[in-house]
Amino acid sequence: MALIVHKYGGTSMGSTERIRNVAKRVAKWARAGHQMVVVPSAMSGETNRLLGLAKELTPSRITSAYHRELDMLAATGEQASSALLAIALQAEGMESVSYAGWQVPVRTDNSYTKARIESIDDKRVRADLDAGKVVIVTGFQGIDEGGNITTLGRGGSDTSAVAIAAAMKAHECLIYTDVDGVYTTDPRVVPEARRLTTLSFEEMLEMASLGSKVLQIRSVEFAGKYKVPLRVLSSFTSWDIDINEEAKSGTLITFEEDEQMEKAVVSGIAFTRDEAKISVIGVPDTPGIAYQILGAVADANIDVDVIIQNMGKEGKTDFSFTVNRNDYQRTIDLLKDKVLPQLGAEEIVGDAKIAKVSIVGIGMRSHVGVASKMFRALSEEGINIKMISTSEIKTSVVIDEKYVELAVRTLHKAFELDQAAA
Amino acid sequence: MALIVHKYGGTSMGSTERIRNVAKRVAKWARAGHQMVVVPSAMSGETNRLLGLAKELTPSRITSAYHRELDMLAATGEQASSALLAIALQAEGMESVSYAGWQVPVRTDNSYTKARIESIDDKRVRADLDAGKVVIVTGFQGIDEGGNITTLGRGGSDTSAVAIAAAMKAHECLIYTDVDGVYTTDPRVVPEARRLTTLSFEEMLEMASLGSKVLQIRSVEFAGKYKVPLRVLSSFTSWDIDINEEAKSGTLITFEEDEQMEKAVVSGIAFTRDEAKISVIGVPDTPGIAYQILGAVADANIDVDVIIQNMGKEGKTDFSFTVNRNDYQRTIDLLKDKVLPQLGAEEIVGDAKIAKVSIVGIGMRSHVGVASKMFRALSEEGINIKMISTSEIKTSVVIDEKYVELAVRTLHKAFELDQAAA
Repeated sequence: MALIVHKYGGTSMGSTERIRNVAKRVAKWARAGHQMVVVPSAMSGETNRLLGLAKELTPSRITSAYHRELDMLAATGEQASSALLAIALQAEGMESVSYAGWQVPVRTDNSYTKARIESIDDKRVRADLDAGKVVIVTGFQGIDEGGNITTLGRGGSDTSAVAIAAAMKAHECLIYTDVDGVYTTDPRVVPEARRLTTLSFEEMLEMASLGSKVLQIRSVEFAGKYKVPLRVLSSFTSWDIDINEEAKSGTLITFEEDEQMEKAVVSGIAFTRDEAKISVIGVPDTPGIAYQILGAVADANIDVDVIIQNMGKEGKTDFSFTVNRNDYQRTIDLLKDKVLPQLGAEEIVGDAKIAKVSIVGIGMRSHVGVASKMFRALSEEGINIKMISTSEIKTSVVIDEKYVELAVRTLHKAFELDQAAA
Repeated sequence: MALIVHKYGGTSMGSTERIRNVAKRVAKWARAGHQMVVVPSAMSGETNRLLGLAKELTPSRITSAYHRELDMLAATGEQASSALLAIALQAEGMESVSYAGWQVPVRTDNSYTKARIESIDDKRVRADLDAGKVVIVTGFQGIDEGGNITTLGRGGSDTSAVAIAAAMKAHECLIYTDVDGVYTTDPRVVPEARRLTTLSFEEMLEMASLGSKVLQIRSVEFAGKYKVPLRVLSSFTSWDIDINEEAKSGTLITFEEDEQMEKAVVSGIAFTRDEAKISVIGVPDTPGIAYQILGAVADANIDVDVIIQNMGKEGKTDFSFTVNRNDYQRTIDLLKDKVLPQLGAEEIVGDAKIAKVSIVGIGMRSHVGVASKMFRALSEEGINIKMISTSEIKTSVVIDEKYVELAVRTLHKAFELDQAAA
């Protein structure tokens, strides 16, 4: 008997028929002797419907008081789906109870619409589990010190599930979603892409942040911090498949560097399109340059991804970074208006048609030559590299957007990701 | 400056456009210097939508745990509309905050789906009012001792508004609805029906329970108990009508028997169709008869309205009562199967085509001959009276359903309700 946390996304909760299937699946796990905590998202479309209503009424001045009300509003979606799931479980003959975030309570800071979990009191939930009940906890939300409802931001239910699993030292947190695991890369680009049976949490972090949108990145951080074994698996298998088979399906995100994991030097290829590159050329190389440029960009609420600074000639430096393509023109204008005159830089150039491709693998830590193998493979296909950025377990390159599929296919093959692990 | 409570029904909150109008109206009152607490219902249709989803999943065994989840689910409707109203008020330039029942808190007993308010802590609300904010409090819901969400039953938002007005000693509680007040009778039956400018709370109680569905009856009881001045008025006037005119519109339900109220002996004519009459004939007249008959009916969850017991001949008695027409056949079957054999009654007869017509008026207390005037007026129209039931401020008769309109028109005229009060 183990304590297991299941999390179901909005698609899995999208209709009463689907909620009934979730209930049957959860009941199967409970009948197998597990203590079950379930974290559902709102029914698909519900959060958008609610926020759409708010948008029609939005005040011209956006205040914290407004964000507080958005959270009051949006939190109702998960409260409703949680109650419906508890009812569906009762219909399956299980004792079941649902709790809103504030009832557990899940305590957060007071950053409305993007709150962070500070602590979870598991007494109430544990008492119910010990009494043989299946406990449903609303995802996505909590309560701040002042007794106000807060929400954790888009995808926050993943984080809720992991946080509860961490607080209760669950055996495993199963994230049921509409894909059957994490792949070596996007199968729409590389049909040979394979599902990974295990992945380290650091790799998942890089895969998630680089565009493999299976899990909310904060939930992976949380899982890493508290060493919660996390499994991504499909909710679209039949609910009555063998539980032992189901328990081994999907992708397990682990925290132990076992032998098998060391074998794979590169675990996956992540990529993002829709990036844009901006370079400030010929900046006098004095301290504070990076802050002067990026401070102005951050103040305008523009996210910066890859950042590179090259020493140029004659005490001047070239400073490059990437932003989301939607922010491209705004960033250029901003720099020309406010930064260029003060900096005494020579010019600002940009390229809005780039993409970023990354190889990710925990094995890169102990293997030299991985990056150069990447560069050679790309060069053999005539793909020009515009920027390079590296970390301990990933190497990213910025290339022309038009080459992105070719690059991903080339790297997937070069690192033998289409071959099953030995 | 006074503390005013506004309550808006589901129709008034039925769209973002309507919510905007509510916000404009409330802002007008706040700008006139009043401290404003607003209690909105869920957007029209929302509670039915949510409970419809639950119905699709309903377990076969209905438990308290199921009712608890229904309350978790249904309470989200008011939480969402409250947040939307707070946002709309912010858009009007007002500071505004919304609270769910548990945040105030509004404490109730733990009778899920039909909880009763036990106490309201107004500290948090009062602090916000003193800080110049408009405070929105979700109607319909509260929190029990165990920290579970409860709801007050259909129409519960009226009760919430009155309870908050009572707890905060509000100057007046304004119930905005889709009618412009309480009428002497249904204007669809008697076009000459007049809107009453004032009505005593006892009369309102009788009018409400007798089918004038303007206000939830429990809210009127609450208003009576705590002497909350209650005004029923229309939310479909233009939001920018003169506030002094608006403050005097609709029907005021009062607790002081002033001179004007003594003038009207009968204030209104209430009626209900869809009743059915059942008589148990020739019951041996021994103690406990009423309990034996009505106990069995109550156990089957059937509501009984008028009850009459007549001494018959030879130590036997006839026992009659009315039930809702939907429960008619079930009641007859129940009595024949379970009660008739034990009682030794002669027979059970019934009539499913009856209606009840009542005259209501606080002046009846001190005026003799009101009932006989009623009976004469009906007799002159050839309307046969089947049952009579009286209380201090009302007299009800049960008649053939086909005469209901004629009876209401006749009585409306006989008591000169079409004449404006002197």
